[in-house]
Amino acid sequence: MLSAQQVQQLIRKGVPQADDLDLRIDEVSEQHSLARVPFNSRLIRPGGTLSGPTLMALGDAAMYALVLARLGPAEMAVTSNLNINFLSRPQPVDLMAKATLLRMTRRQAVCEVGLYSAGRPDELVAHVTGTYALPQ
Amino acid sequence: MLSAQQVQQLIRKGVPQADDLDLRIDEVSEQHSLARVPFNSRLIRPGGTLSGPTLMALGDAAMYALVLARLGPAEMAVTSNLNINFLSRPQPVDLMAKATLLRMTRRQAVCEVGLYSAGRPDELVAHVTGTYALPQ
Amino acid sequence: MLSAQQVQQLIRKGVPQADDLDLRIDEVSEQHSLARVPFNSRLIRPGGTLSGPTLMALGDAAMYALVLARLGPAEMAVTSNLNINFLSRPQPVDLMAKATLLRMTRRQAVCEVGLYSAGRPDELVAHVTGTYALPQ
Amino acid sequence: MLSAQQVQQLIRKGVPQADDLDLRIDEVSEQHSLARVPFNSRLIRPGGTLSGPTLMALGDAAMYALVLARLGPAEMAVTSNLNINFLSRPQPVDLMAKATLLRMTRRQAVCEVGLYSAGRPDELVAHVTGTYALPQ
Repeated sequence: MLSAQQVQQLIRKGVPQADDLDLRIDEVSEQHSLARVPFNSRLIRPGGTLSGPTLMALGDAAMYALVLARLGPAEMAVTSNLNINFLSRPQPVDLMAKATLLRMTRRQAVCEVGLYSAGRPDELVAHVTGTYALPQ
Repeated sequence: MLSAQQVQQLIRKGVPQADDLDLRIDEVSEQHSLARVPFNSRLIRPGGTLSGPTLMALGDAAMYALVLARLGPAEMAVTSNLNINFLSRPQPVDLMAKATLLRMTRRQAVCEVGLYSAGRPDELVAHVTGTYALPQ
Repeated sequence: MLSAQQVQQLIRKGVPQADDLDLRIDEVSEQHSLARVPFNSRLIRPGGTLSGPTLMALGDAAMYALVLARLGPAEMAVTSNLNINFLSRPQPVDLMAKATLLRMTRRQAVCEVGLYSAGRPDELVAHVTGTYALPQ
Repeated sequence: MLSAQQVQQLIRKGVPQADDLDLRIDEVSEQHSLARVPFNSRLIRPGGTLSGPTLMALGDAAMYALVLARLGPAEMAVTSNLNINFLSRPQPVDLMAKATLLRMTRRQAVCEVGLYSAGRPDELVAHVTGTYALPQ
């Protein structure tokens, strides 16, 4: 498996939004990943909240990190479906995303993600599920 | 109703990603909107395609433009659910999003969006549905 | 391609709910299908509406009919994702579902469906998107 | 809060599919519910698996049970969105659904559900998220 640091570099090299968000991959394991967007006032919308696209990009990155860590750097997984429910307003702190692998077959990986404000893991800001088509 | 130009300004002022993508709102009407991300080599990933977050941000913006044009600038609609299916690889040209209002009640608006490469409206790159909670 | 009649028989033989609902496949073509649940007072919930599971079963059947007509009877496609937005209360008449193929590759088919009360095709009762994994 | 038994009666009276499936509500609490479809050879499709509509109906019922237990019998919540990922083939045993409340506001409740074959809670058969509009 790749390390969190390796996965972070691959994602930031490959996805412009990940670099713009200063995306961090804090942890990866066989079944989980933990990703983070550091608090940055540039990302704040009128009303004091993070934008929907920031939350979607972080949710996608957390799932992609988990898949990439298992597949290795040569392989190109592709998002095929993503569903997000926005649940509550993020706090003005780092935004966290904990991804869990629900199922991986030869053909696809399905994950879920809970997004939360740093320090408040029990109060979800958003919930994401995603499917990644795997190279064959 | 607001004009396409007014809606574009409101979204670009409010959503940092919209400004990074140089988002354009080409048209808005009672039932539709047409949005665009001009082709920009900075957005291209290894392999020559646009990133998932670019597609999600454009789909969300097209739906939000439609809702905002009807509600007016004082009102804050909030995305509550977004579902996206990625269908084919975008071409290296402008990326278009045509949104259609499926249903609007006092409480919420539900829209769908077809994303396609400019000049190829019949070959979808992605399909999005979204729900917006309306202020009461 | 299979006929609407052939597809109807295959689905009703294979899915118990389709038989319980007296599911009809009115039309199938390369890009579309039209399915129907005849009005039946047994299906009506308190409040006079059809249940969510009735709508989901019809949406799934309409997409499956389209995929099956193209693949033929020997092939087993499997639903991998389904997303439904419930939009308005059905009328006490037949419930219709018009499915459209969005994209078919060797690996999967993605469809969308508009559900409506017979005679009111412009007022959607629900909107469905679905993905079917194809046999390889 | 209502008991599991009360919720089961309300759902089976209100949703014809719940009665056809012999739906059982085993548990309800503030944050969870556990629902079950007893194994029944009538529900089995060619190939030995349960149909998609059976899984969708059970996932919806488990979430609805949780919402109904908190709201009480006089209140009518309505499903507004449901997303399901089908993950693996169910075993020929009872099908279980454990629902968790992700967020409840005055306007809506959002839940997730893991479906699994009885005795194998760690191997998901399907994963569902759903949104219920609450009466105001």
